[in-house]
Amino acid sequence: MFSMNNIKQFVENSLGRWRSQRSAHHLTFRHFEAVQSVIDIVAISPGDRAVIELCQLYSVDPSQAVMPFQMSWEGESDWDENSEVKGSCILVPIPDPNIPNRGKLLRDQGYAETIAAAGDYHIAEDGTFVLLTSYEHAAAEEKIWFANPNLRFRVSLIKTSGGSGVVTASFSSEIRSLSGN
Amino acid sequence: MFSMNNIKQFVENSLGRWRSQRSAHHLTFRHFEAVQSVIDIVAISPGDRAVIELCQLYSVDPSQAVMPFQMSWEGESDWDENSEVKGSCILVPIPDPNIPNRGKLLRDQGYAETIAAAGDYHIAEDGTFVLLTSYEHAAAEEKIWFANPNLRFRVSLIKTSGGSGVVTASFSSEIRSLSGN
Repeated sequence: MFSMNNIKQFVENSLGRWRSQRSAHHLTFRHFEAVQSVIDIVAISPGDRAVIELCQLYSVDPSQAVMPFQMSWEGESDWDENSEVKGSCILVPIPDPNIPNRGKLLRDQGYAETIAAAGDYHIAEDGTFVLLTSYEHAAAEEKIWFANPNLRFRVSLIKTSGGSGVVTASFSSEIRSLSGN
Repeated sequence: MFSMNNIKQFVENSLGRWRSQRSAHHLTFRHFEAVQSVIDIVAISPGDRAVIELCQLYSVDPSQAVMPFQMSWEGESDWDENSEVKGSCILVPIPDPNIPNRGKLLRDQGYAETIAAAGDYHIAEDGTFVLLTSYEHAAAEEKIWFANPNLRFRVSLIKTSGGSGVVTASFSSEIRSLSGN
């Protein structure tokens, strides 16, 4: 496995275009949802206005931001044949100055609720990126890891706000697109 | 998270009946497969003839076996509507006497190939059980972890024997069945 112990490296390895297969398990209904999408992850300047505003919203000095990036996705779900899955958000890592593998991840749109959110991330010993985000009515846990430089996996859990009940568990296989970059 | 740092505890927490939703991503074909099944995990005696024979096959002293168990599954896949997914295997953990979170897992039928197999497991700091198994023509990597005592997740990768290419990635959500035990 290639080394990956800090957020800068993790984001750098994530840049590019990815073709994603995502399966969502809606646990209460035993329903399977299949989503195919294209994800673009591009670096943005730490001096970008959106980055600075997001830092200010969370009272963080913008100079602490490391490798801010934009993630955009566009795809289709089989849940509703007419539904197009499309969106974009800006993400700003703020590493903990004392603990190199931990920090905050600010984003201008959350995953479980469409408002700005600040999650707590850490990078585990095996290189897995783990993100915990609490929203008003839900909590989200994401794990992302690389099988090789061109293949990453993502497990996302949407939990009740208490954190014990899992409502939806989804799994993505993301393959670097040859046509990307 | 409840503590889980050794194989005995991991197997004990896994005993029972589980209702499983599994999504397989066949990466080359971008195909989604959905499998619904019931999984039964039951402890078997270390003195069971099948356990002793499996240990002998791998030249392991049967007294080293900890918490051998049988796993049975029965379900349906949407890949082929007539295909019933059904099977059973015996698994025998052999902890490393020096490293408590590592060891071998013997099984009388493999996952990627239907022959006996010996995999290398370890339990990561966050409690995730990781199993690597090499077969003649393939390699398998499994990660299993608990979200809570009644919900476990499993990510299984089938790789080319070289280990770098992933052919199939699958994700299971396993909910403890109320009717079990």
